[in-house]
This record gives sequence, structure tokens and C-alpha cells, in this order.
Amino acid sequence: MYTYDRLFSFCKNVFSHIGCSEESANLATEVLLSADLRGVDSHGIARLIGYLRLWEAKRINPNPNIKIVHETPSTAVIDGDSGLGLVVAPFAMNVAIEKAKTAGTGWVAVRNSNHYGIAGYHSMMALKENMIGLSMTNASPLVAPTFSKERLLGTNPIGIAIPAGEEPPYVADFATTTAANGKLEILQREEKMAPEGWIQDKDGKGSKDPHELKQGGALLPLGSDREHGSHKGYCLGSMVDILSAVLSGANYGPWAPPFVSFLPLPTDPVGLGLGHFFGAMRVDAFRPADEFLSHMDKWIRRFRSATPSEGNEKVLVPGDPEREMEKIRRAEGIPLNQKVVDDLTEISKRFDIPL
Amino acid sequence: MYTYDRLFSFCKNVFSHIGCSEESANLATEVLLSADLRGVDSHGIARLIGYLRLWEAKRINPNPNIKIVHETPSTAVIDGDSGLGLVVAPFAMNVAIEKAKTAGTGWVAVRNSNHYGIAGYHSMMALKENMIGLSMTNASPLVAPTFSKERLLGTNPIGIAIPAGEEPPYVADFATTTAANGKLEILQREEKMAPEGWIQDKDGKGSKDPHELKQGGALLPLGSDREHGSHKGYCLGSMVDILSAVLSGANYGPWAPPFVSFLPLPTDPVGLGLGHFFGAMRVDAFRPADEFLSHMDKWIRRFRSATPSEGNEKVLVPGDPEREMEKIRRAEGIPLNQKVVDDLTEISKRFDIPL
Repeated sequence: MYTYDRLFSFCKNVFSHIGCSEESANLATEVLLSADLRGVDSHGIARLIGYLRLWEAKRINPNPNIKIVHETPSTAVIDGDSGLGLVVAPFAMNVAIEKAKTAGTGWVAVRNSNHYGIAGYHSMMALKENMIGLSMTNASPLVAPTFSKERLLGTNPIGIAIPAGEEPPYVADFATTTAANGKLEILQREEKMAPEGWIQDKDGKGSKDPHELKQGGALLPLGSDREHGSHKGYCLGSMVDILSAVLSGANYGPWAPPFVSFLPLPTDPVGLGLGHFFGAMRVDAFRPADEFLSHMDKWIRRFRSATPSEGNEKVLVPGDPEREMEKIRRAEGIPLNQKVVDDLTEISKRFDIPL
Repeated sequence: MYTYDRLFSFCKNVFSHIGCSEESANLATEVLLSADLRGVDSHGIARLIGYLRLWEAKRINPNPNIKIVHETPSTAVIDGDSGLGLVVAPFAMNVAIEKAKTAGTGWVAVRNSNHYGIAGYHSMMALKENMIGLSMTNASPLVAPTFSKERLLGTNPIGIAIPAGEEPPYVADFATTTAANGKLEILQREEKMAPEGWIQDKDGKGSKDPHELKQGGALLPLGSDREHGSHKGYCLGSMVDILSAVLSGANYGPWAPPFVSFLPLPTDPVGLGLGHFFGAMRVDAFRPADEFLSHMDKWIRRFRSATPSEGNEKVLVPGDPEREMEKIRRAEGIPLNQKVVDDLTEISKRFDIPL
């Protein structure tokens, strides 16, 4: 177990070491570790080494000049200047929030960015302002659209956070695939087979081998197959791709830059870096805030108190499991698997930063 | 086969008969029949009798005073005055489009409405303005959240339309369930079993009986079960419910008014009528329109030319099948099943309107 403070200090020192400002190093660390706190282990400190490798490959600029390149009263496009998505994304979400203060809503598309951590962190930034927050990003092409042998989309997550009154907020954060890549990685480590409907092999046939992606296989869109609505998951993933990258001027579809530095960048880019899309909507741009918040309380209580189906304990409201996990991990610490500890130890030695 | 013009004339006369203005009758007919043209038979003229029954039960006001009750530069809330959703929704989408002209984007939540036809029609209204259109609605509670025995959500569809340059537009329109209710109705008529993963029985156990909903069963969220991501479908359906109904002041979750008039309205409403949510985003609020449109062409061509997986002919772009269907049906007519013809014949006799 590692305390949050211990990992925070290490992570911040690493970001500082590669040239991030004090402020950026703090922010990047907070965003990255929010994944570990919330139990999304695949997107937290386990990825620190991945960001470092991108920095070594000169694909990440530690001191970016993040700027608004176009705007209207309710929109903006931001160029991330190849910065860490962990820093570019909160900048963009803050612009969306500021726009919403005057225009009612704010919508920001981002180009020239990198992986931004968990979608949920950014959407949750809107909550303290009594706004609904929306966050999405495109990502390394690992997903085959329905009927496709080729991988053309990322796991392209959607995060939406909705404030409530007395209840904790509604927070949904999910990949638009049947299973996130992080879940496959767990199966790979444990040498277990995947359930049917998560992946296909290089010919587009269903497979249970979690190593399939290394052999040209693909993750499947939410719905798994046509009969179970994979075309809807494909719609969701492609919507995220278009809003994040076509609208902003980033690389879309199969041109999205890979997160892993050992894969080359496409030689025929169609835009700049990775893309994100953010939204903020003031709830009182629609109805009085107290009315909205008390009805959200009622919504949440009704759903949480629904009669569970046989064999299940209770019905959850989106955000419940992550909030519970954060409570536990803040108190008891964050468990890291040995592979991650090895990576961090290597970083610690190389940069002479105590873990 | 019935020609579009023949069905249009009949339908328009029926809406006029119940008291709609000339303009409303025309619009309601156009929206309703857009479903038949696009091959979404469950949402087209097959539902005319359902709307009539709601009118007879005094749940639909044929001459509503649709009005904006609250607004900011980029948002509005509209009260549909119990009008036909087929008429209220285009009014609201037009408000979103007008807002977008000045603010860059427009977002409109609607309360006190009724069933609005297909989501796709309304989102596609944005296309002619070079805007991205978004449309969603809540609906009769027929869907059980993950782990729930109770039906708390509708099939809550999402429609998104994105303009392109030389290519036809990207148009996604899908229920946030594994299968739409219309598909179950087809199986019921044909006395066939449903695939696994579409429905559960009254105890929350998986079932293949398409009649299960009449016995307290439920449709399942996109993803079917927890292992295949049904919690993500539940997130999508609940997001649509909250944006459509909690934000607008309509009835949400299990309080959503049923489409079928023989089911009573909840005696403890939490809002007014059914809710919708619409968005319009000017593409040039983000980047020059010609740039956006030519990159959408490139996106569409890349996806449509992807190598298909074994056994499949080609990879589709959302909107392709519906556009093909519309071409055929405009030329060859619209096929109606006998049950629908019987309903229309009954209406024809009762109102003395030639079919």
C-alpha cells in the first residue's frame, strides 16, 4: 500500500524533473492520481512511465503554450502545444466553465494534446460551479467498428458529471467499448481468458485471447456484435472521435497518435496531436438551481432504492463505486501491482527521486 | 405498398381532424413519416393510432401554446403545453439553431411534451445550417438499470447529425438499449424468440420470450449484462433521462408518462409531461466550415472503405442504411404490415377520411 501523499510527492517530482512548472506538475499529478483514488488503476500512476517515454520521444512538451485559437460566446478551440493532456484538459475545461458563466453553456474542442487521464476528473470540475460537466477524448486506434477488420477508433470515453443537492453527484465515466483496455491488461497479467464479446482476432472473428490485440486483433464497440447493438457503440465511439478531433483539428480515427511511444506516429497526419471535447452547462441556465438539485436528489434516491434483481444486492447510481473506492484508498492507501512498482522504482533510480 | 404522398395526405387529414392547425398537421406528418421513409417502421405511421388514443384520453393538446419559459444566450427551456412531440420538438430544435447562430451553440430542454417520433429527424434539422444537431428524449419506463428488477428508464434514444461536404452527412440515431422495443414487437408478431441479452423477466433473470414485457419483464440497457457493459448503457439512458427531464422540469425515470393510453398516468408526477433535450453547434464556431466539411468527407471515406471482417460486405457509416432505405421507399412506396393497415382503415372509417 502506498499513501496518496507519498505517490503525489513522487509523481510531482517526476513531472518537475522533466521540465513542468510547479503548477503544471501539481495539476498533472492530481489528475493522474485521481484515477488511482477512484479505482481506475489502468489510467493512474501505472501510466507515468508511458508519459515519460512519450516525453523522451519528444512527443510531449513539458512547457506548452496552451492557447485559445478560435472562440465564440459559447465555444472555443484550444491548441495544447503538444502538452500533457493532464494539464491541457483542465485548462480547456476551465475555459468551458468560464464561457458557461456568461453564455449559459461552454463547449471547448482541443487539438494538439496528449492522453488526458480519466474522463471523469475533467467533467467533475464543473460540479463545484453547479454545472453539468461533459468530457470526451479520442485515443489510440484499438477498436474495430461493426463489420470492420481494421482498428479505426480508440476506446473513446465519455465522462458526465451532474450535481445534486444533499446526495453526492451523479458521475458517469466509461469507455465506449464493451471492455476497457485496462481490463484486458489485467487478464493478460493473470493469464486468464476474456469473456466472449470483448475482442476479435485479426480476421474479425470473435476471440477470448486477451493477447489478441498484439496480433492485430481489436477491441469491440459497446454491444459486442450487431445483434447486441455494437453499431450503437460504434456510433458513440465515432461521435466522440468527431467531436474531439474533426471539430478541433486534431488527428482522428486511425490517425490518432498512439499512447505507446514504440509505435510510430502516422506519417500522413490529418491534424495536430490528440483531440478532446469538453462541455459545461449551468443548471440555472435551464431552471432555478435549487429546483434542479432537489429533483436530482429525488432521481438519485429513487434509482438507488430500486428493487434489485435476484442475486444482486443493490442498484447503483453512476459514481457510487468510485466514490466508495476513493474513501477507502484515501484512508488505507493505494495498492500497486508489482509491475507498476518495478516501473516506478526504475524511474526513481534513473532520476534520483525517492519513491 | 403505399406511396409517401398517399400516406402524407391521410395522416395530415387525421391531424387536422383532431384540431391541429394546417401548419402543425403538415409538420407532425412530415416528422412521423420520416420514420417510415428511413425504415424505422416502429416509430412511423404505425404509431398514428397511439397518438389518437392519447388525444382521446385528453393527454395531447392539438393546439398548444408552445413557449420559451427561461433562456440565456445559449440555452432555453420550452414548455410544450401538452402538444404533440412531433410539433413541439421541431419548435425547440429551431430555437436551438437560432441560439447557435449568435452564441455558437444552442441547447434547449423541453418539458410538458409527448412522444416526438424519431430522434434523427430533429438532429438532422441542424444540417442545412452547417451545424451539428443533437436530439434526445425520455420515454415510457420499460428498461431496467443494471442489477434492477424494476423498470425505471425508457429506451431513451440519442440522435446526432454531423454535416459533411461532398459526402452525405453522418447521422446516428439509436435507443440506449440493446434492442429497441419495435424489434420486440416484430418478434411478437412473428412468434419468434428473442436473442439472449435483450430482455429480462419480472424477477430480473434473462429471458428470450418477446412477450416478457407484458408480464413485468424489462428491456436491457445497451451492453445486456454487467460483464458486457450494461452499466454503460444504463449511464447513457440515465444521462438522457436527466438532460431531457430533470433539466427541463418534466417527469423523469419511472414517472415518465406512458405512450400507451391504457396505462394510467402516475398519480404523483414529479414534473410536466415528457422531456426532450436538443443541441445545435455551428461547425464554424470551432473551425472554418470548409475545413471541417472536407475533413468529415475524409473521415467518412476512410471508415466506409475499411476492410470488412470475414462474412461482412462493407463497413457502414452511421446513416448509410437509412438513407438507402429512404431512396428506395420514395421510389417504390412504403410497405405496411396488416395490423397497421387495419388500424389505419379503422381511423379512416371513424373519421371519414379516405386512406
